[in-house]
Amino acid sequence: MSFNTFGQLFRVTTYGESHGIALGCVIDGCPPRLPVSEAMIQGFLDRRKPGQSRFTTQRREPDQVRILSGVMADETTGELVTTGTPINLMIENVDQRSKDYGEIKDRYRPGHADYAYDVKYGLRDYRGGGRSSARETASRVAAGAIARQVLPGVTIRGALVQMGPHRIDRTRWDWGAVDNNPFFCPDPVMAEFFETYLDDIRKAGSSIGAVIEVVAEGVPPGLGAPIYGKLDGDLAAAMMSINAVKGVEIGDGFAAAELGGEENADEMRMGNDGKLLFLSNHAGGILGGISTGQPVVVRFAVKPTSSILQTRRTVDRYGHDADIITKGRHDPCVGIRAVPVGEAMMACVLADHLLRHRGQVGTPVEWPFRK
Amino acid sequence: MSFNTFGQLFRVTTYGESHGIALGCVIDGCPPRLPVSEAMIQGFLDRRKPGQSRFTTQRREPDQVRILSGVMADETTGELVTTGTPINLMIENVDQRSKDYGEIKDRYRPGHADYAYDVKYGLRDYRGGGRSSARETASRVAAGAIARQVLPGVTIRGALVQMGPHRIDRTRWDWGAVDNNPFFCPDPVMAEFFETYLDDIRKAGSSIGAVIEVVAEGVPPGLGAPIYGKLDGDLAAAMMSINAVKGVEIGDGFAAAELGGEENADEMRMGNDGKLLFLSNHAGGILGGISTGQPVVVRFAVKPTSSILQTRRTVDRYGHDADIITKGRHDPCVGIRAVPVGEAMMACVLADHLLRHRGQVGTPVEWPFRK
Amino acid sequence: MSFNTFGQLFRVTTYGESHGIALGCVIDGCPPRLPVSEAMIQGFLDRRKPGQSRFTTQRREPDQVRILSGVMADETTGELVTTGTPINLMIENVDQRSKDYGEIKDRYRPGHADYAYDVKYGLRDYRGGGRSSARETASRVAAGAIARQVLPGVTIRGALVQMGPHRIDRTRWDWGAVDNNPFFCPDPVMAEFFETYLDDIRKAGSSIGAVIEVVAEGVPPGLGAPIYGKLDGDLAAAMMSINAVKGVEIGDGFAAAELGGEENADEMRMGNDGKLLFLSNHAGGILGGISTGQPVVVRFAVKPTSSILQTRRTVDRYGHDADIITKGRHDPCVGIRAVPVGEAMMACVLADHLLRHRGQVGTPVEWPFRK
Amino acid sequence: MSFNTFGQLFRVTTYGESHGIALGCVIDGCPPRLPVSEAMIQGFLDRRKPGQSRFTTQRREPDQVRILSGVMADETTGELVTTGTPINLMIENVDQRSKDYGEIKDRYRPGHADYAYDVKYGLRDYRGGGRSSARETASRVAAGAIARQVLPGVTIRGALVQMGPHRIDRTRWDWGAVDNNPFFCPDPVMAEFFETYLDDIRKAGSSIGAVIEVVAEGVPPGLGAPIYGKLDGDLAAAMMSINAVKGVEIGDGFAAAELGGEENADEMRMGNDGKLLFLSNHAGGILGGISTGQPVVVRFAVKPTSSILQTRRTVDRYGHDADIITKGRHDPCVGIRAVPVGEAMMACVLADHLLRHRGQVGTPVEWPFRK
Repeated sequence: MSFNTFGQLFRVTTYGESHGIALGCVIDGCPPRLPVSEAMIQGFLDRRKPGQSRFTTQRREPDQVRILSGVMADETTGELVTTGTPINLMIENVDQRSKDYGEIKDRYRPGHADYAYDVKYGLRDYRGGGRSSARETASRVAAGAIARQVLPGVTIRGALVQMGPHRIDRTRWDWGAVDNNPFFCPDPVMAEFFETYLDDIRKAGSSIGAVIEVVAEGVPPGLGAPIYGKLDGDLAAAMMSINAVKGVEIGDGFAAAELGGEENADEMRMGNDGKLLFLSNHAGGILGGISTGQPVVVRFAVKPTSSILQTRRTVDRYGHDADIITKGRHDPCVGIRAVPVGEAMMACVLADHLLRHRGQVGTPVEWPFRK
Repeated sequence: MSFNTFGQLFRVTTYGESHGIALGCVIDGCPPRLPVSEAMIQGFLDRRKPGQSRFTTQRREPDQVRILSGVMADETTGELVTTGTPINLMIENVDQRSKDYGEIKDRYRPGHADYAYDVKYGLRDYRGGGRSSARETASRVAAGAIARQVLPGVTIRGALVQMGPHRIDRTRWDWGAVDNNPFFCPDPVMAEFFETYLDDIRKAGSSIGAVIEVVAEGVPPGLGAPIYGKLDGDLAAAMMSINAVKGVEIGDGFAAAELGGEENADEMRMGNDGKLLFLSNHAGGILGGISTGQPVVVRFAVKPTSSILQTRRTVDRYGHDADIITKGRHDPCVGIRAVPVGEAMMACVLADHLLRHRGQVGTPVEWPFRK
Repeated sequence: MSFNTFGQLFRVTTYGESHGIALGCVIDGCPPRLPVSEAMIQGFLDRRKPGQSRFTTQRREPDQVRILSGVMADETTGELVTTGTPINLMIENVDQRSKDYGEIKDRYRPGHADYAYDVKYGLRDYRGGGRSSARETASRVAAGAIARQVLPGVTIRGALVQMGPHRIDRTRWDWGAVDNNPFFCPDPVMAEFFETYLDDIRKAGSSIGAVIEVVAEGVPPGLGAPIYGKLDGDLAAAMMSINAVKGVEIGDGFAAAELGGEENADEMRMGNDGKLLFLSNHAGGILGGISTGQPVVVRFAVKPTSSILQTRRTVDRYGHDADIITKGRHDPCVGIRAVPVGEAMMACVLADHLLRHRGQVGTPVEWPFRK
Repeated sequence: MSFNTFGQLFRVTTYGESHGIALGCVIDGCPPRLPVSEAMIQGFLDRRKPGQSRFTTQRREPDQVRILSGVMADETTGELVTTGTPINLMIENVDQRSKDYGEIKDRYRPGHADYAYDVKYGLRDYRGGGRSSARETASRVAAGAIARQVLPGVTIRGALVQMGPHRIDRTRWDWGAVDNNPFFCPDPVMAEFFETYLDDIRKAGSSIGAVIEVVAEGVPPGLGAPIYGKLDGDLAAAMMSINAVKGVEIGDGFAAAELGGEENADEMRMGNDGKLLFLSNHAGGILGGISTGQPVVVRFAVKPTSSILQTRRTVDRYGHDADIITKGRHDPCVGIRAVPVGEAMMACVLADHLLRHRGQVGTPVEWPFRK
């Protein structure tokens, strides 16, 4: 990861600002002959798209993706496939409301990157947050759609597991429920509760944080390049790079700090199928930075949206104290739309590591136990 | 970060295994004319060195560092300075106890990387964990000592803030206490408690997890390269790459998920010195992936040592169920020695970002507010 | 350089195919607050644009560039400046003649990348050469325009110095002549000769090779990162990556192999201005991979256009012998249009190295001789 | 390539100076389970070793390599194999003659990197040229020995094809002759001539340049990652990074500039074995940056050794004009010992590209022609 590119072999470079002409990504290093289509990518973008419920920003962006390069029609089937060259996925901005930015143009919004960008670059794009806007994550979701094509047999799903102090009940976990509520919540009971809870927050002009969990099943063992290309290291960087994320954990995460060695280490036994079987998954599917074949489990904490309808103390670019209220169209819980983004980052990291493993060692193989 | 190298401009490549001939690192891209010495580096290595109390492994390694390249005597002062070329810091292994590895040679230790390395590479270095041993972290500490030279005016300090379920009382935080107990604990009261607590765990042949906090003060604003070279993203990857780490958080971290927007966003006011003043530091000194000038605060969770003196279920390389007890010289709380390692990773990441910022933008400057 | 990205700090990623929707580049890591405009970039693109004389392909492409991201209006002057975020420069394809590709779709054109792409990727974009078309170099020229903004005080100029076996007379070198003939030739006499010479070749349906020289003056000393980021190493890779280039030399290049040590090594004396003065420039401005302050001189050989109107022997994708004539709109001497491309690559490499030097060492300084 | 590391997946980082404690390399990303041994590496180092004839420097360095990490005994055969972790190959310096460096300490040797390093870093290691010494190339040769293990079926051989203005007669090319003369010359007649020729130069205290050719046979088709990871681009950078190299060409190289399209483009026919057959190899085995299966042919020009026993004009660090004679132990034709170095760089680049291809596309396959 560096500047605006992530990945070593499956490389994604994103570009574009919240209120510019267009945003998107260039995916480089993608294997050839993988089927892709704008419709397939659009399906993932639509899950992240704003304005789908009253719990997300009311900005009206169709987020329509165009594939500008890197594909061609397969000569036998006629369907689009990748060619191995850079794939540019572009999304034109449509609803850049031409409002007066006067207030935030000169005042730093607390919790936002306004001051940080200004102090770093000596200027900042104040229009909707510019490059630091969460709109950038649409590019990631588009890239993630391509990454999934690199990962046949891998299932990647995300869910909201906590909003404010309220956690879901894991015994009620139902992946089927996730797309049946506006929160990507796998616990139908809590989903109902969140409806009222978040409505109150929204009406109060406030916002709230959340915790998201992403699980990848069917990940082949052996992915991860120790010591500084560990799978969990790259996942941590990937998730932490999502807007507003302040913490990442793998498997038991911070709870592991409270455990003794006998509870934490996952024991093993031979399964009936002659394969190695872990008796638990405290490790979240990763040991020594390498996937073990168990589900890879990542959680990340999203801070509350910093744009709220309450007066906050700040300063302006002229060095004066000032007050600010961030009007506009904002998510009361920006963590919700981070679910498809987290899934996409998981897909990109896994695709990259699959190619990296294949490069160094070859196609992942079954456990090489000796007979 | 990729394979065994981390950093873009201040690049550290580590090499070596637990029971090989030598381990160490090659530091590339270091600015020239910085004063360095083996004694200076040794000071940091000695803090991490095993065998200093009954709470760390009894392996006797002097961890004596040698500078093999990249330095020369300054022609006026006669003291060693960097030349801008690769600095190889080598530590020879001394106490590779020539024991019988029969038991762990064929059996995968639960919680360790044994199975993962074997399934990835088709073989593994079973001697003391080989490359996946925490001995590798000595290389990081040596690199961190050089990195600190790149960061004049920056103070980097780490502390153990939780052991098992027991957290320190932050009102008693005393940096001066950290080096006065074998736990790097800033709370003298809890340090005393941990003495008994960990002794019991050690005698029971068990182990326990911990949480470490690292704080960097004096970090210039503007460090961090959004979007995929964010300072917090790189810190997350750096800390997650340390052995046994399962979670990383910046500032409030996971607690931010429980906050509302008005509590979480740090307000600003003009200070008496004409500089911008944040009224709180929930953000941990980073907004939009860029340092703000506030202290950079990172915490990470370390799982309990997986090597314990209790029988655990596992399988062997021949596909048979087996039992295993990991005898040997182990830390009952491997989190303790992660403190100097976390400091070193913080130093390396900040040094790298300082150079990266200087490359793109120039020497960090004060807040460019307009008059 | 890797895949479709080059540069470490000033990073350019190009995308797009000859007959796709659009092509262009994403420039990442560019310093902020540099003035840019579409008109400025267009000026450079127009020099490379096809169809400007009968000596270049008659394809009609306006090569109109659009800046999609990474810029905003400066708040005081109102002019566009860079923001430090990714700059996407897009050129839409217009004249994709919808011809029948039947012939070349299945037959490999000798000298082209047809077979190589097919054997690598298992498919190839036969429409105008796809990604391997020289149209890709428009992206480089656009990037070079931005790179020049990073290099105030540096003058980069290219010229055609040989066509077929005919070399220019260096005593007649006149930079002013370069833009007064369709060959970028600095020798007006030879330019006149080339007019007839190339006309004959063109009419015969043949093509011819060329040698291009690019000179950068005003390059600060100290640029170049030994050992594997040497300035000449990066220039060699950059020039060799241009379509049809088969050789690169720095300074005297291959002629240096014929020299004795006393002729080759550039002697030094103190200049009247108190600065170090080289008495010759066999080295081409680079010693030990580092710029010396002398003009940086690079030459590269461009092979003749492989598309010619003469029957050639080849095979088809079905494993049959076949004959092929490559009809279409082609440059009789593709080396001509390589001149602005070579300049652009020089600009990009120098910009990158300026930032890299600034990162490691700081702003380039005068010779630090002691008093 | 960046700083002191080259390669993307097969990564080599070199360290060490001419007169430091040790030099060597860390090879990262090497596939596991490849057989290696110090004796095998030593064989290649001995070809490059100084002091083997009166035509190379008389410095007495045994260049004894030690494998410090990254290998272990295979459990069945007992022989050393790679483990997939970093391989540190170290060579200790022995013959650092403790001579008086007074003269060159303050004076810049013409043709050397003295001034360039000083102006870049503000200091320089004057002891034997420090990091810029050709001794660094021993590290490359050691790395190349490992790289060859990644390339079963590939034969890489180098030869000196020109010394001063004297070229070999290619009709007399005999690979068997290469190791039977002190010049790695494949033309026995010219080898005899060079003996007298170079002796005269040596006795005159002068030096001379050379051209080296390296040929790789058995390279699978498909290696090379367009556009900026082209095989020829990476080879150009690799060869240009060798000390004293001023030009690189692929296949016909600069001669291609003199050809017409019908002569230059290699025609194809189906071979009797049902495989595609090129009728010539002007391209040097690379089209569009991708290997075609033909022999990969690279040539590079080496300038004459700059250290000669003749008085040269220079300046000193105090800004005074001065004269200098570079006494010491030097090669009269440094191009000779560049032969094994060029082979090693070829091996490293090909190994890297084989892994990169495998990562993106999979194991190289035969031409996928359709039936």
